[in-house]
Amino acid sequence: MRFKNPPVNSLSLQFLTEFVISLEKLENDKGFRGVVLTSDCPSVFSAGLDLTEMCGRNPAHYAEYWKAVQELWLRLYLSNLVLVAAINGACPAGGCLMALTCDYRVMADNPKYTIGLNETQLGIVAPFWFKDTLVNTVGHRVAEQALQLGLLFPPAEALRVGLVDRVVPEDQVQSTALSVMAQWMAIPEHARQLTKRLMRKATADHLLRQRDADVQNFVSFVSRDSIQKSLQAYLKRLRQKKG
Amino acid sequence: MRFKNPPVNSLSLQFLTEFVISLEKLENDKGFRGVVLTSDCPSVFSAGLDLTEMCGRNPAHYAEYWKAVQELWLRLYLSNLVLVAAINGACPAGGCLMALTCDYRVMADNPKYTIGLNETQLGIVAPFWFKDTLVNTVGHRVAEQALQLGLLFPPAEALRVGLVDRVVPEDQVQSTALSVMAQWMAIPEHARQLTKRLMRKATADHLLRQRDADVQNFVSFVSRDSIQKSLQAYLKRLRQKKG
Amino acid sequence: MRFKNPPVNSLSLQFLTEFVISLEKLENDKGFRGVVLTSDCPSVFSAGLDLTEMCGRNPAHYAEYWKAVQELWLRLYLSNLVLVAAINGACPAGGCLMALTCDYRVMADNPKYTIGLNETQLGIVAPFWFKDTLVNTVGHRVAEQALQLGLLFPPAEALRVGLVDRVVPEDQVQSTALSVMAQWMAIPEHARQLTKRLMRKATADHLLRQRDADVQNFVSFVSRDSIQKSLQAYLKRLRQKKG
Repeated sequence: MRFKNPPVNSLSLQFLTEFVISLEKLENDKGFRGVVLTSDCPSVFSAGLDLTEMCGRNPAHYAEYWKAVQELWLRLYLSNLVLVAAINGACPAGGCLMALTCDYRVMADNPKYTIGLNETQLGIVAPFWFKDTLVNTVGHRVAEQALQLGLLFPPAEALRVGLVDRVVPEDQVQSTALSVMAQWMAIPEHARQLTKRLMRKATADHLLRQRDADVQNFVSFVSRDSIQKSLQAYLKRLRQKKG
Repeated sequence: MRFKNPPVNSLSLQFLTEFVISLEKLENDKGFRGVVLTSDCPSVFSAGLDLTEMCGRNPAHYAEYWKAVQELWLRLYLSNLVLVAAINGACPAGGCLMALTCDYRVMADNPKYTIGLNETQLGIVAPFWFKDTLVNTVGHRVAEQALQLGLLFPPAEALRVGLVDRVVPEDQVQSTALSVMAQWMAIPEHARQLTKRLMRKATADHLLRQRDADVQNFVSFVSRDSIQKSLQAYLKRLRQKKG
Repeated sequence: MRFKNPPVNSLSLQFLTEFVISLEKLENDKGFRGVVLTSDCPSVFSAGLDLTEMCGRNPAHYAEYWKAVQELWLRLYLSNLVLVAAINGACPAGGCLMALTCDYRVMADNPKYTIGLNETQLGIVAPFWFKDTLVNTVGHRVAEQALQLGLLFPPAEALRVGLVDRVVPEDQVQSTALSVMAQWMAIPEHARQLTKRLMRKATADHLLRQRDADVQNFVSFVSRDSIQKSLQAYLKRLRQKKG
């Protein structure tokens, strides 16, 4: 599955909705047992959440957007498919979250590409289920430091702390992802799926129990004047940069 | 304590029952404060659960067998004794579980010997308390990948991920285990026992709270036609291999 | 903030009380956003709890003392300030606990200095919240072994297991701590504080829910004849050593 939402694969509401529908089709199609997630946009895996969905809209829109983000995470994190991330570009924030839901992460060995949950750098806070996903991957201490500082790790560092599983030359990312996929495909499927659920169910249940409260929390946070101002300032800087 | 249930130290119902009784005696004997678990069978530490106990029997037998497996784990995991595993042979599945309940693991540096919870490879799923024991030892991410793929780690890899604590030449496994034991013996005993309980009680309580449900779960899983068929096919292959 | 309770910065009741008051002042002073914890006593960061507060006193005193220890931990662990430990000396038991509450730990590269929760070596047991703090830092398996054996790690080992984040020559400990502080200061403050709370709240709540029971537990433990005897013997040995 190749993400194609130029220029940077932002997770817009429309992108999220279409992604969840495609994923559901693949889950129900017995012909598909695994998916490689990768990007069709040069040098960006995914820039993460789409700030324009969080700026200058009404509370109902914010709520709808956040439910779509939750839904994507829940579908990916508990997917019966084998998911392998072929990280062929920058992978911050929500892009990193998607990669973390996969069963295996292959990253291109290009020091310009970085990966991490860098929310604090923008003055915002990663939700608890982003945090839980990160802790499950790199442990409590690395997660604490990475989240507080909003660290973006270059490939070698990401490998060292366990944020990705393999770093390969850029032109081998896809082929490596496919050979990893073959290894995971060789496992009896039902046993593998039950084992994945065994590992991840408690973390998913944590969000399911608090889903509405988490939406309310997001809506009231993002509706604050101070947050709106800082997001707008950030967007303005981005546009001038592109400009 | 040397396991002697040739040829591969399968955890038969009789073996489990005798093991628990011996362990209880040692726990109550003030003269014993630590035990080295090792194997008397060449090149196998323990092959794990005895599939013949899970094949072609009635539900009451399956329930009795599973309670015995639970009992062994509970006794070992919360043992007041210092337990050191001297892993002098292959150590898959239930064999690995026993090693993981110890306070320290020394493994022979022989790449033919491997260790891991490889249940998915047989089309079955490790129970949640096998999973909890593994997560406590190697962390969530390594456990997730190892359990889904049913990985068996050679000694050097096992050391790298923390599945064992020390790898030594095969003829030094016993002496190293004894010198590790001496180090653990030097600690004030009551404080050490309380500390062990502090670390492990929550994990043991997890099973104690759900013990009956876990037995029911095992019985209904193993009674399925599909599981019986795949276990019988596996046993047949094993017998032909030997035969 | 330089600890100055010669000769070894024991955490006496008076020291704890003054420490908490100073910390509260700094928390409320908008001019302060971070604090480096270090020692003014040569070759000791802090020797930890003051055994003379736990010896030959009455239960009311023990209870008051233990509440003060809890209070210090709660304040430090959930502090809104950036806390960096500049560990310029030995750092056992309660000294190690204080270091573990910080956001970052820099240690002097002097093999005479060691760090760890060595309670079992004195025949006592680290409370569950000492244990939780250690598990959050180094993971379950390293914590289990370190706590049972009461291990004190020299700097290189402490770095390897993640008990400290950086080891530098002794004369660079302070300057390194300050440059680390600058890095943490650069993060938008409110987002960083909320993220810290997100990571640590569950662990702090664990103690808050059981605070009274934990005091009772300490009082009855320390009041035992056997514990009083072993503490007094230990203190006597310490005094002879000095004397």
